[in-house]
Amino acid sequence: MQLDELGASSSVRPRVVIVGGGFGGIAAARGLRNVPVDVFLIDRQNHHVFQPLLYQVATSNLDCADIAAPIRSVLHKQSRTWVAMGEVTGLDVGSRRVLTSSTRGELAVPYDYLVLATGVEQSYFGHDEFAAFAPGLKSLVDALAVRGKILRAYESAEIEEDPAQHQDLLTFVLVGAGPTGVELAGAIAEMARVSVRSDFRRVDPRKTRILLLDSGPRILAGFDESLAQKAQARLTRMGVEIRTKTHVEHVDEKAVVAGGQRIVSQNVLWTAGVKASPAGSWLRADTDRLGRVQVGQDLTVPGRPEIFVIGDTSVFEEKGKPLPGVAQVAIQQGRYVGRAIAARLKGGTLPQHPFRYSDRGNLAVIGKNFAILESHRIKLSGLPAWVAWATIHLGFLPQHQSQWRVLVTWASAYFSGARTARLILEGRFRPKPGALLP
Amino acid sequence: MQLDELGASSSVRPRVVIVGGGFGGIAAARGLRNVPVDVFLIDRQNHHVFQPLLYQVATSNLDCADIAAPIRSVLHKQSRTWVAMGEVTGLDVGSRRVLTSSTRGELAVPYDYLVLATGVEQSYFGHDEFAAFAPGLKSLVDALAVRGKILRAYESAEIEEDPAQHQDLLTFVLVGAGPTGVELAGAIAEMARVSVRSDFRRVDPRKTRILLLDSGPRILAGFDESLAQKAQARLTRMGVEIRTKTHVEHVDEKAVVAGGQRIVSQNVLWTAGVKASPAGSWLRADTDRLGRVQVGQDLTVPGRPEIFVIGDTSVFEEKGKPLPGVAQVAIQQGRYVGRAIAARLKGGTLPQHPFRYSDRGNLAVIGKNFAILESHRIKLSGLPAWVAWATIHLGFLPQHQSQWRVLVTWASAYFSGARTARLILEGRFRPKPGALLP
Repeated sequence: MQLDELGASSSVRPRVVIVGGGFGGIAAARGLRNVPVDVFLIDRQNHHVFQPLLYQVATSNLDCADIAAPIRSVLHKQSRTWVAMGEVTGLDVGSRRVLTSSTRGELAVPYDYLVLATGVEQSYFGHDEFAAFAPGLKSLVDALAVRGKILRAYESAEIEEDPAQHQDLLTFVLVGAGPTGVELAGAIAEMARVSVRSDFRRVDPRKTRILLLDSGPRILAGFDESLAQKAQARLTRMGVEIRTKTHVEHVDEKAVVAGGQRIVSQNVLWTAGVKASPAGSWLRADTDRLGRVQVGQDLTVPGRPEIFVIGDTSVFEEKGKPLPGVAQVAIQQGRYVGRAIAARLKGGTLPQHPFRYSDRGNLAVIGKNFAILESHRIKLSGLPAWVAWATIHLGFLPQHQSQWRVLVTWASAYFSGARTARLILEGRFRPKPGALLP
Repeated sequence: MQLDELGASSSVRPRVVIVGGGFGGIAAARGLRNVPVDVFLIDRQNHHVFQPLLYQVATSNLDCADIAAPIRSVLHKQSRTWVAMGEVTGLDVGSRRVLTSSTRGELAVPYDYLVLATGVEQSYFGHDEFAAFAPGLKSLVDALAVRGKILRAYESAEIEEDPAQHQDLLTFVLVGAGPTGVELAGAIAEMARVSVRSDFRRVDPRKTRILLLDSGPRILAGFDESLAQKAQARLTRMGVEIRTKTHVEHVDEKAVVAGGQRIVSQNVLWTAGVKASPAGSWLRADTDRLGRVQVGQDLTVPGRPEIFVIGDTSVFEEKGKPLPGVAQVAIQQGRYVGRAIAARLKGGTLPQHPFRYSDRGNLAVIGKNFAILESHRIKLSGLPAWVAWATIHLGFLPQHQSQWRVLVTWASAYFSGARTARLILEGRFRPKPGALLP
């Protein structure tokens, strides 16, 4: 295939192309800042998102710019790093080219080393038709859509004169009780009980019903069981109904069918299930059942030592267990790639010491003043874990300025309960006069 | 017409229905807080927007929640005020009902007093086909669309290898040199020169070309001529090309034709021209050529003393000149309506003293450290006016918490030049794999 080349370079430096500006891609790019290579990072978004706080954008506490930063601004100090916005459509591993689609049409980007850090997409387990009724939470645009869905539920209930219908209109069903489902359920409960309580006249927001479903035997499968139990107790006290071993069979615009029971709800949110982005099929490599690429001990594709696949895009087993799909894994793998490429450039075909994950622990937050924290032998729950959660998340925000903004917002929300980003924005570009609302 | 009634009430208090939650509608609702009436405010958005700072959302400095607040949260302390989200489709002035469309279908809302504060819409002077290529700036969603258009221009230029095309890709044409056009031009110039300068590798953002067109003889027609000249000098020094007496004849996806000349630009922004919302046609009342309702000295429609039309929705002449379409007029008229209804309830058909506008002055800001201020005999320009501008705008933000957030953002932007909300968000809900980007 003969394509125009994007960024053909006369540089003698080897070129590292990174696909994806999430935790893994950014860590890889940063890890290469002092390595004599040209870095070329492609993402279809112009921004990096701090995903652990997406649920706060969805529940009207934070706004988009608080948890996101332009990728090119994150990396602007690295003069040999070039960021481009475009969609990767495939790979030509033979001629070492990434195939992209952009405003300039189809273009090929040559590489010497390739880092695939394309993350995951929402998976509806073969039921993509659920997507129209049950948005997921993977991007800022998703978060705005979820936010709009939650806020519209209250707006609809407020103009519904039949109190018997309020309960149905304010029934939220969250499918999947991993960290996202648990954190979102806690935040919606908090919002209903505190933030919007005095804002409505006809409907009582305390009528909000939140169901948290999971097909597994318990919530927070990635956490220690005793902590998950504490989280479950906290959620239950906040009014969240938890149903485990409950499989979702059907979702439409009016209801969800789960565990054989029909639950009337127009507010179904999908917090379960991911599948890998199509990197596996671009590579025609071996993948696991989630589509994640099987990589070697040095994170490269077997037989392709110049191609690294990191973060959620690959599956890496340690002690017979795959590493979890969390930011820390992606970040550490990104850094490892930086070191690995540097070592190879120095030592030729120097054998690489294998990637080793250093588990820093795991956190989940439930409403105000309560989180669970698990790190090595430490198991914390309640206020101390919540303070740790807030400090750590504040510290890791992608923009320095955002840390101040979020601190102000959290402090104010802590004392007043206000959620200031309660804005219905999505899907209403240039509305036609007379369009049906809300 | 027999419709279901929305919010039928057994209250013996008279009911005031307010249509629109902008400056006028909110001021009217607040003005009625201690008056023995039930207030019912309808808006098709769930939020009030502080419109004077929309251009900062469009130029990536502020985020949506900084300049907007949920209407029901603004009014939540008024227990006899009810806010509903819905679209008004017409009026039945005979039976005193507002006709609405909402999730509950077509509903009628009965009123004793009606306040129409529906604002203005963008006007393309009979060329609605321009709208697809030249977004206006009237709502948060508009601001996100303009922001996306500006940021995409740089993203497209960055992957364009032919430097000859960079100039075209970075040509911004602003149609209309009123305050919105002037402030937007200044902010884009500032962004190009400072905020994004070090973020690009292939394109030089200083190549940004900004044309500010107006069909009138000078910019800022609403300001004193000497101040407008100072603003013009400032803009020119920032690199903005100003073309007055230039009429836009055509806009399409590739170019704009103005004053007989074709300017290649995919970045046309519409900062000219408004037309009144359809309140005039609902009322079948006399309107001016912009569709604004002619009201009497007490802001009511002739022959309909129970219907007030305020803000940009009406035209009110003082000393033979119509009042300008600014926030202060709407706010003062809203307050007047509150007092007028209170007086009528107390005194029966007490003749109302006429509305009188107290002009507090006029402000426009151009980039950093420069604004113009005109108030009675005071005419200021430069840094003192800029300090006044920043202080006044900070003070009038709709949410207390936002004041702190905006202060942090402005302080940081002042010293670092950073614009932290450079996020392309609009129009990308659940993108299909392989969709063309950017």
